[in-house]
Amino acid sequence: MSAFVRLSKKMNLISDLGAATAVLGWDQETYMPDGAVAGRAEQMATLSSFIHDHITNADSASIVEDVKQELPSLTNREQLVATTFIRDHDRALKLPSDLVQDQARTASMAQDAWKRARQASDFSIFQPLLEKTVELKRREAEIIGKAEHLYDNLLDSFEPGLTVATVTPVFDRLRIGTTALLREIEPNQVNVSDAVLYRTYDGDQQLLFASDIIRDLGFDFHTGRVDISAHPFCTSFGSTDVRLTTRIRPNDLRSCLFGLIHEAGHGMYEQGISPELARTFSGQGASMGIHESQSLFWENIIARSEEFWHWAFPRLRSVFPDQLKDQDVRSFYKSINKIQPSMNRVESDELTYNLHIILRFEIERDLIAGTIEVKDIPRVWNEKMEAALGITPANDAEGCLQDVHWSFGGIGYFPSYTLGKLYAAMEWNAMQKEMPNVREHVSNGNFAPILAWLRTNIHAYGRTEQPHEIIQRVAGRPLTEVDFLSNVGAKAHNVYGI
Amino acid sequence: MSAFVRLSKKMNLISDLGAATAVLGWDQETYMPDGAVAGRAEQMATLSSFIHDHITNADSASIVEDVKQELPSLTNREQLVATTFIRDHDRALKLPSDLVQDQARTASMAQDAWKRARQASDFSIFQPLLEKTVELKRREAEIIGKAEHLYDNLLDSFEPGLTVATVTPVFDRLRIGTTALLREIEPNQVNVSDAVLYRTYDGDQQLLFASDIIRDLGFDFHTGRVDISAHPFCTSFGSTDVRLTTRIRPNDLRSCLFGLIHEAGHGMYEQGISPELARTFSGQGASMGIHESQSLFWENIIARSEEFWHWAFPRLRSVFPDQLKDQDVRSFYKSINKIQPSMNRVESDELTYNLHIILRFEIERDLIAGTIEVKDIPRVWNEKMEAALGITPANDAEGCLQDVHWSFGGIGYFPSYTLGKLYAAMEWNAMQKEMPNVREHVSNGNFAPILAWLRTNIHAYGRTEQPHEIIQRVAGRPLTEVDFLSNVGAKAHNVYGI
Repeated sequence: MSAFVRLSKKMNLISDLGAATAVLGWDQETYMPDGAVAGRAEQMATLSSFIHDHITNADSASIVEDVKQELPSLTNREQLVATTFIRDHDRALKLPSDLVQDQARTASMAQDAWKRARQASDFSIFQPLLEKTVELKRREAEIIGKAEHLYDNLLDSFEPGLTVATVTPVFDRLRIGTTALLREIEPNQVNVSDAVLYRTYDGDQQLLFASDIIRDLGFDFHTGRVDISAHPFCTSFGSTDVRLTTRIRPNDLRSCLFGLIHEAGHGMYEQGISPELARTFSGQGASMGIHESQSLFWENIIARSEEFWHWAFPRLRSVFPDQLKDQDVRSFYKSINKIQPSMNRVESDELTYNLHIILRFEIERDLIAGTIEVKDIPRVWNEKMEAALGITPANDAEGCLQDVHWSFGGIGYFPSYTLGKLYAAMEWNAMQKEMPNVREHVSNGNFAPILAWLRTNIHAYGRTEQPHEIIQRVAGRPLTEVDFLSNVGAKAHNVYGI
Repeated sequence: MSAFVRLSKKMNLISDLGAATAVLGWDQETYMPDGAVAGRAEQMATLSSFIHDHITNADSASIVEDVKQELPSLTNREQLVATTFIRDHDRALKLPSDLVQDQARTASMAQDAWKRARQASDFSIFQPLLEKTVELKRREAEIIGKAEHLYDNLLDSFEPGLTVATVTPVFDRLRIGTTALLREIEPNQVNVSDAVLYRTYDGDQQLLFASDIIRDLGFDFHTGRVDISAHPFCTSFGSTDVRLTTRIRPNDLRSCLFGLIHEAGHGMYEQGISPELARTFSGQGASMGIHESQSLFWENIIARSEEFWHWAFPRLRSVFPDQLKDQDVRSFYKSINKIQPSMNRVESDELTYNLHIILRFEIERDLIAGTIEVKDIPRVWNEKMEAALGITPANDAEGCLQDVHWSFGGIGYFPSYTLGKLYAAMEWNAMQKEMPNVREHVSNGNFAPILAWLRTNIHAYGRTEQPHEIIQRVAGRPLTEVDFLSNVGAKAHNVYGI
């Protein structure tokens, strides 16, 4: 048996275990009874340890050695698939299992402490465990140890190849451009009201409408489904089984609709990965950032465009005639594109969202570099909020305790969200060049050519390319904030009549 | 580390993998999108092979050897738990892992084919995969190879210790007694009408009522839930996560209600297993037959008793006042105990049900013995239906495609249902001796003492005892058809006024 065939069998087994773990995770968030929490934790831990063992065991090491010899004789696709596995194997092998266990234990305690801290709006409850988390992540970064900045080693696990050196100037220019645009918008706030979004909308009808929309966008219900959970997510057990969740708020029309379109963007990515990559380590999205570029592409670029509502608004109004009787396409389009500084990342608009991310990025980077300490976070957070958005949180719950990410050790994760926005804008501009009538397609509810373009240029590749390779190939240049700023600026000028 | 501790850790890991497999199976029957069938089959096959590997690998063999040495110094419970594992280990060791994997993959594909075949009422869609299934089960039986009849080796995996030689005379006497009773009932058919059951009952209200009933019986929704599936079932991922399913038919009041009570009987058994047995090989029901004795105890002995409806009928009538306005407890009780030969096992009455089972038992036995072939099933089925029940199915969906069991490789399973009826009658007679006022408890909707008795005498033991040991302990004698025939005969005389 060739080394590549042995590797494929190995990857198939581990992928199946990963899919099973994901099914258990999905079930936990959707249907699992409350009393099953402890048992489910044991099951998940067992599966995770099986997966880790099978990536790092002696058999795996021997396959990796043999595949390296065999590489020159493999096809291009086989080389890419093998290389992905080797990279994951090398990274997993570097981390001592006592560190991994310590991180898992700390994460579990820290998530509990974070919940209590947020409830009490008291950062000091979370502080000791966040200190431990940062210390362990710093140890992890030191062990990986290949990069200029320690923090680069953490960024790399979410966005392979991303560094402080490349992202900092992009984020700096993005902040400057954002601030300038905000200054233009501020005196024109009176031109846009979003009050219509907070009328009362029947929950079942919201879900039905949102489900119809994502079906029309191209989410395939033959290989996917939608359920309800406390926090929306997308998970996949292979490209033929993709699960979305959403939540419904009767007094916020955005939550279910844009939430589900966002998750469907993730889901269509997973559904579009080449079947040839199934059950390999390349049969997933390329990175968190590229994944976010897909969800944000559909949520912000398509579903927050005027052309989209030209098509969708009559349908929405036929579902909610009373609530929308004083609205037209234009007024509705304006309401979903209102830009206004706010305290909460998740609920913020397309533009100011990035200021929330840059703030978190700088704090993470400086924590890992050791130039600030965990105890400084509430003060630094509030200062940065005031400087960036002109508002100061009233308390820790509203401020530095709002996100779950740090509590589970997700340091290096936040930048992906803004990368997703920048990538999405670059993809959209590239698409427009190749398909000049794409806006017309959107107006007509003809999304098939758009999805086909994303499939061909991004989805099918799965994880065989690095994010920077994908973007270079698609947009013809490396990561830049220019496309995002110019597109969002044009939209803001249109919406605000500037 | 003692051998028993090593064994416990081993059993914990394997139990967790088993629970994960069960979650995937539950998901497949409830929520999984159609397009995911092939991928799910791979995942199930991988998990099954991991389980098989971990039961049979060298580490496991060494633990078994060491535990055998340690047995005399273990507590009684530890000895029983260890012995259960050793028995499973010995059986699994005989089965090659390619066979196990092939069976899992075939089962997943065959279940899909069976669904399509039943929908199209065309046995030929299912035939090739059933042929493969039978071939694989025959290989399994040949490899186990310890028994007089090949089929005994399959019976044994559902009902340890059961053989064609022991069950045949019991089934023969049961058939004779059943036929005699049917002959008595036939001229009195006019005395009982069940037309009320086929009026129109709102599906949501049926489900709500049935859910309330099982909550009152003692099914714990904190550690369990109810979903809808094509074929009702109960599955458990440990005693703190028990899933029931049911189906709803607006024109058949029995389907949802008695189906759910039946599955809740299984579910309460799982919920009642001693927590000390969690994540061991003894933390499950003792056998399929004992499991059925629990589901049938609640479905037939409790929920088809006149005392039960004394309590439940006013509640049911308050939900469906129009449909039940011409009914009283007595007429309703008679309607749910009508005895009448019919096509469908699941919907057949308490008495003729066993004739359906004996038919399946004979077909399975002859398939494995090779005296009939899969392609003969539709013809043989119809001939046997005519001989036993005097009726012939109009098509395959109504006949040999009605049950899911063969599609997942459950050959040897069917006899358990009738064993369950015989055991349940023996348990009920034993319970009445120890608790003379038990019928009064039922009249008052006071089910707690009944559940407590079953917990203490049956549930808590899990799989630490063999079925014949449980029945001997509880009833003071081995398997017999006498209790069943005398109880069901007395009820029929009451219902039919004979």
